Amino acid sequence: MTETSGSSGSPSRRALIGWGGAGLALGAAAAGSAAALAGTGSDVDPAGAASGAAVAFHGTHQAGIATPVQDRLHFAAFDVKTDDRAEFVQMLKDWTLAARRMTAGQTVGEGAYGGLAEAPPDDTGEALGLKPSRLTLTIGFGPSLFEKFGLADARPEALVDLPRFSGDNLDGNRSGGDLCIQACADDPQVAVHAIRNLARIGFGKVVIRWSQLGFGKTSSTTPEEQTPRNLMGFKDGTRNIAGTETDRLKKFVWVDRKDGPEWMAGGSYLVARRIRMHIETWDRTSLQEQEDIIGRDKGEGAPVGKAKERDEPFLKAMLPTAHVRLAHPDSNHGATILRRGYSFTDGTDGLGRLDAGLFFLAYQRDVREGFIPIQRSLATDTLNEYIQHVGSAVFAIPPGVRDKDDWWGRALFSEEA
Amino acid sequence: MTETSGSSGSPSRRALIGWGGAGLALGAAAAGSAAALAGTGSDVDPAGAASGAAVAFHGTHQAGIATPVQDRLHFAAFDVKTDDRAEFVQMLKDWTLAARRMTAGQTVGEGAYGGLAEAPPDDTGEALGLKPSRLTLTIGFGPSLFEKFGLADARPEALVDLPRFSGDNLDGNRSGGDLCIQACADDPQVAVHAIRNLARIGFGKVVIRWSQLGFGKTSSTTPEEQTPRNLMGFKDGTRNIAGTETDRLKKFVWVDRKDGPEWMAGGSYLVARRIRMHIETWDRTSLQEQEDIIGRDKGEGAPVGKAKERDEPFLKAMLPTAHVRLAHPDSNHGATILRRGYSFTDGTDGLGRLDAGLFFLAYQRDVREGFIPIQRSLATDTLNEYIQHVGSAVFAIPPGVRDKDDWWGRALFSEEA
Repeated sequence: MTETSGSSGSPSRRALIGWGGAGLALGAAAAGSAAALAGTGSDVDPAGAASGAAVAFHGTHQAGIATPVQDRLHFAAFDVKTDDRAEFVQMLKDWTLAARRMTAGQTVGEGAYGGLAEAPPDDTGEALGLKPSRLTLTIGFGPSLFEKFGLADARPEALVDLPRFSGDNLDGNRSGGDLCIQACADDPQVAVHAIRNLARIGFGKVVIRWSQLGFGKTSSTTPEEQTPRNLMGFKDGTRNIAGTETDRLKKFVWVDRKDGPEWMAGGSYLVARRIRMHIETWDRTSLQEQEDIIGRDKGEGAPVGKAKERDEPFLKAMLPTAHVRLAHPDSNHGATILRRGYSFTDGTDGLGRLDAGLFFLAYQRDVREGFIPIQRSLATDTLNEYIQHVGSAVFAIPPGVRDKDDWWGRALFSEEA
Repeated sequence: MTETSGSSGSPSRRALIGWGGAGLALGAAAAGSAAALAGTGSDVDPAGAASGAAVAFHGTHQAGIATPVQDRLHFAAFDVKTDDRAEFVQMLKDWTLAARRMTAGQTVGEGAYGGLAEAPPDDTGEALGLKPSRLTLTIGFGPSLFEKFGLADARPEALVDLPRFSGDNLDGNRSGGDLCIQACADDPQVAVHAIRNLARIGFGKVVIRWSQLGFGKTSSTTPEEQTPRNLMGFKDGTRNIAGTETDRLKKFVWVDRKDGPEWMAGGSYLVARRIRMHIETWDRTSLQEQEDIIGRDKGEGAPVGKAKERDEPFLKAMLPTAHVRLAHPDSNHGATILRRGYSFTDGTDGLGRLDAGLFFLAYQRDVREGFIPIQRSLATDTLNEYIQHVGSAVFAIPPGVRDKDDWWGRALFSEEA
């Protein structure tokens, strides 16, 4: 399922930079230049991580879920502004084309900036000269989208509105959305560039409802690499589903054909939660108390009573309110999610406290058997004294784009057409 | 001026990770581990860029000015909350100690988390296991600091309050500050960790007034590397002062002893401006118009009428309102600044537009002969239709910390004591 580019005769961002100004400005035709592609949307190839290589856009599943987690995130939720179904479908096709090119390290438009000096450039340009940086773009459809375009009957049963959880303090301006795009890349400029250019293509059809920059990953899907730490200073996601664990992915992440609806086969469901941390309070808590609350030690990340990070947790050795214990599948009838969260810091809150925390992203086969029972179980988590959920959204993640003729949402919109 | 650590017998962040949980939690003494240090505060050694090495903290000048520009930024302005001079001086000493350790890739406290399980950890932990990542921490003193602690007579003449410039739309909550810390690193988690831990040490004495995350550098001080692009898609800082240009640094950046006051010798002055870009409007502007406005072509970055980025600009070939022309030293009686800005994007503004732009940082020997005349000259810049200055601050940057007995601000506070 690995695609090689160059067949379109269009340059990679990287090739572009060497041309010289005059030719560029006039949109001169370029010699085709094959971008180096590594990894695929469905399979996992961590090899490309260090090289700034491209992750293939086409696959059974969308890239950006089981793909080895990139370092940086720009996430945007959009509201639909058009009631013209054909116009919206055309935008999805245009988005797909742009996403296919940008993930391959190319500019949005063919040719340099897509043509004439008299027209606005097709590409905003700030990623020129940058590597593909393992950019993945993952689209999702929110519950409210199914109230539009006659899609009501196509709404998956599993795409439930999230219930109100204990402690929720949600800001409507940071919640919901008809659509989402998750842009992950090792270079934040590449991720920001991608969201900006999709927003631009969507001008008049969609508008950004909220967006979130994540400066550092807090979960990994590649156990062989060092487990990242969240802003509480603890290793996060030690027992996460790895991108190579085909069986667990099939069981817990990918929607099966028999789950229905048909158009979701190979897709998944995403829960996004903006979790503000009261880090100043946390930082005044003793080390022992921090470790009791989490259920792991801070240095090594070993579960209570164990020596090594990856030792099997013995839940009964932990406090009944320990985070690891309450979130563990054994405490939740086996409920398991794939985590892909990022740390954020968005300035200060007017009281001199950093507006910082975890932008939690979790993928699952069914929200009712994934995030919801786990989050309910966490109602008694002592960690709740130090965190607050301030944003929330849920999205159906359609399957991958199969080939050059396919586009984001084709199965949904063709089924209903 | 290169320092090797390890003399304190304390571990580097990197060495720490391998110990195992139990020992860590008890704060066991660790074998000393020399952190790899490359580069110095005063001199320039871009060699460490790829390796995650440390930049030396000690030097004639503070690091983070002429130092090769790191990829990411976390910048914080603080207000002083104490009126106890001795308490404030002690905080500066504590900050210096922590900065010395963190820039070397060590935890804030000696030992693992600084001691007992019953106490809050000295270090918040999220940078454990990460490389020094070329972290630099640069302190600055704002005009309002000199209204406190009997410092009025020590205020440098060159530390003027900035005048109101044409087009300014400043938000008081993103402007000013008694103190600032500029944290630059190749890993944003390392920069965020440093600001957070300094804020924590300062608890009760100072409080963060505002802070800014910069996700990508827009200027370089190393001409041999590819010039970064700002969010307008243009290469930025092509003719910036290089960290190796000792003569230009001496002439335009470092405060000379004869400039006065004595305590500022070897220091500099920093102007910080949060510049919001109306990127949606910019993106609808034709390529030709964008290039006319800037005075360079977008692809190569060559000045109008020239072929290559680094060709000498011929100002008369540009429109009289072109940005490059108006900002050029020849248009400003030679005024020259060292730029160190970063791109930011802080979500959306409630109207679906990205709150994105340039966090402009400029160092100079005298603000009255640097930023002020240049910014006045830019009053007729057509770029002003696409940008707005929404935050502003100015700081005196004291000289470097010389050795282990020295501390940030010693010359200022000793002179006045």
